[in-house]
Amino acid sequence: METLNLLERSLEVKWSDGKVATFHYLWLRDNCPSGFHPSTQERLFNLTTISPDIHAVNSTFDKSTLYISWSEGAHKSAYRLQWLYENAYSPDFKKTDTSVIVPWGTEILNKLYEVEYNDLMQDDLALFNWLKAVQKSGISYVRNVPCTDEGVTDVANRISFLRQTNFGTVFDVQSKPNPINNAYTSEALPLHIDLINQEIPPGYQFLHCLVNDSRGGESTYADGFRIIEELRDTDPEAFHLLCTVTVPMRFHDTETDIRTRNTIINADENGQLVELRYSPHLVDTFDMDESMMDSFYLAFRKLMVLINDPRFVISVKMKSGDLCIFDNRRVMHGRNAFEAGEGYSGARHLRGCYVDRSDFESRLRVLGRKYT
Amino acid sequence: METLNLLERSLEVKWSDGKVATFHYLWLRDNCPSGFHPSTQERLFNLTTISPDIHAVNSTFDKSTLYISWSEGAHKSAYRLQWLYENAYSPDFKKTDTSVIVPWGTEILNKLYEVEYNDLMQDDLALFNWLKAVQKSGISYVRNVPCTDEGVTDVANRISFLRQTNFGTVFDVQSKPNPINNAYTSEALPLHIDLINQEIPPGYQFLHCLVNDSRGGESTYADGFRIIEELRDTDPEAFHLLCTVTVPMRFHDTETDIRTRNTIINADENGQLVELRYSPHLVDTFDMDESMMDSFYLAFRKLMVLINDPRFVISVKMKSGDLCIFDNRRVMHGRNAFEAGEGYSGARHLRGCYVDRSDFESRLRVLGRKYT
Repeated sequence: METLNLLERSLEVKWSDGKVATFHYLWLRDNCPSGFHPSTQERLFNLTTISPDIHAVNSTFDKSTLYISWSEGAHKSAYRLQWLYENAYSPDFKKTDTSVIVPWGTEILNKLYEVEYNDLMQDDLALFNWLKAVQKSGISYVRNVPCTDEGVTDVANRISFLRQTNFGTVFDVQSKPNPINNAYTSEALPLHIDLINQEIPPGYQFLHCLVNDSRGGESTYADGFRIIEELRDTDPEAFHLLCTVTVPMRFHDTETDIRTRNTIINADENGQLVELRYSPHLVDTFDMDESMMDSFYLAFRKLMVLINDPRFVISVKMKSGDLCIFDNRRVMHGRNAFEAGEGYSGARHLRGCYVDRSDFESRLRVLGRKYT
Repeated sequence: METLNLLERSLEVKWSDGKVATFHYLWLRDNCPSGFHPSTQERLFNLTTISPDIHAVNSTFDKSTLYISWSEGAHKSAYRLQWLYENAYSPDFKKTDTSVIVPWGTEILNKLYEVEYNDLMQDDLALFNWLKAVQKSGISYVRNVPCTDEGVTDVANRISFLRQTNFGTVFDVQSKPNPINNAYTSEALPLHIDLINQEIPPGYQFLHCLVNDSRGGESTYADGFRIIEELRDTDPEAFHLLCTVTVPMRFHDTETDIRTRNTIINADENGQLVELRYSPHLVDTFDMDESMMDSFYLAFRKLMVLINDPRFVISVKMKSGDLCIFDNRRVMHGRNAFEAGEGYSGARHLRGCYVDRSDFESRLRVLGRKYT
């Protein structure tokens, strides 16, 4: 640190590298290290115990620390300079894009990240590298997962606990009589995101193939983020409508009626994609203003056309012991129809579960303490 | 229905009550009843199989049904007139505010909705009425819940399955050595929303009092929605900042590091409140643009002052067998400090769990099929 300057509502600091940072007095007082619980690290300081006009009356610094005496109260604050530098929020300190996501089209087929079940279960570094790869591309295969009821949950629990839904914590995808959703038939399933009718759709999905002794039944995937970028480039107005107009989403059967409203695409304030909520089965009757209905339908249809574009769709036939993990809020999945045929019994059985995105990311961060 | 008129991209309908509805051709084709799975009721129709310019070439109606022949394909559509009326989206059909929420201050103490455990467990109508009351005020008490480990989950499971978090599916609130959060001490807990660091904080919270043999330890509650309305009325600019500027939220310990970014207040596109995300313990270091930092802090502090205003806070001492349910995304909770004293052992033990809002609402809708 080179110089500091006491302004009316903030402290201005010039650092040795020439960068200038402003720290507002309210921010400084609220972040005084003495205000955090020593064991839980949670903030205990109560902002209402100081006036909105609190300011520094004196401030000095040495090689490692900045000291402040305040206009009210006897308390003095001390901040590590390194902490201040790292948490500065002035224009000179604008964070650059830290997204690790790499969108893909069909070229991913040749470089799909794979890991062996045994490595994953026994080696934390293999787990860490796998999680990083999954976060990057949103899809990966695990090979040689034991074909037991617990195979899929053993893999998922290496990351975190399971996300429960109205379908349970674990679900079996196979043909059933009187199916409550289209997955439980032998028909083709077009590409979709699972459970968009939930306030937050499940994060990462795990599908473990126990049997796939059928003609057809290939799994299909497409990177929703790749497709959205294509839409944003070629039809920004359609992209904008899908990001801003909410539609009703719903699943219902005899036991449940789960509804939400959301946009089809969610991006954050910097335009970075957060999620695609695309499932033609589960969008309810559109009800936006009359003035927007036609252009919304045209935008939605344009997205659907892109989703069916062969440039983006990969097709993989799973065999017993394969497990696919994918980011259910980014990568759409589907399957081709399947049936019995010469040499095929027609049996197909996948077992699946979910782990939410925040628990996945938490695991990655905690492993990162050790491996980065 | 009185008249219909084929326009270029839509059908205009005049109803007997004078209301006029426009139905766009894309909307009509997409909602043709033939496009839904007869058993699952999910949409099977693929919008990309028709052109964006599809239109009706002929349309007639009788007492109950509207018929359409299309410009492409041999398919003809038939719609129930009642369904069309109910799903019309033109200005004449603007939905009025259907919110059932009633905000409260301290006056609620005299009319807090209560239900007996036995009634709740045995009678679906009692359950239905209770859920409606809980949705309305965001808080209610259940009396005489058996003081067993399962008491709280038995009540919660009457509604739905439990929301699991990094604290488990069930948590015990009592003093612990080396606490990982402030709740597990005997200190006062200021009003807060639980787990704002989650992408969606848990919905309804259940707290079952097993022991409260302490001096102090009263539970405190305040209706966040009532307080936000006060802020919106008295300082719309502060309200706007808290609705639009995102801040980092975080919980971390040795096992987890769960983060999200969100606004402190969430309202929907019509201005209806969705949630308050207020927890001073769990907001991380603010990092918005320098130009907004000071005014954001002033807005946040103003909200904090209102939250501590005695007009809004109720205080209730729970006794063994009491269970409080509250909407954790609306109603803040806290507690006074507790200690041993004459005639008090100082023991205090609450057991808690969560059910998410969408599962709560689903249960209410499904019971409503029978009772409304």
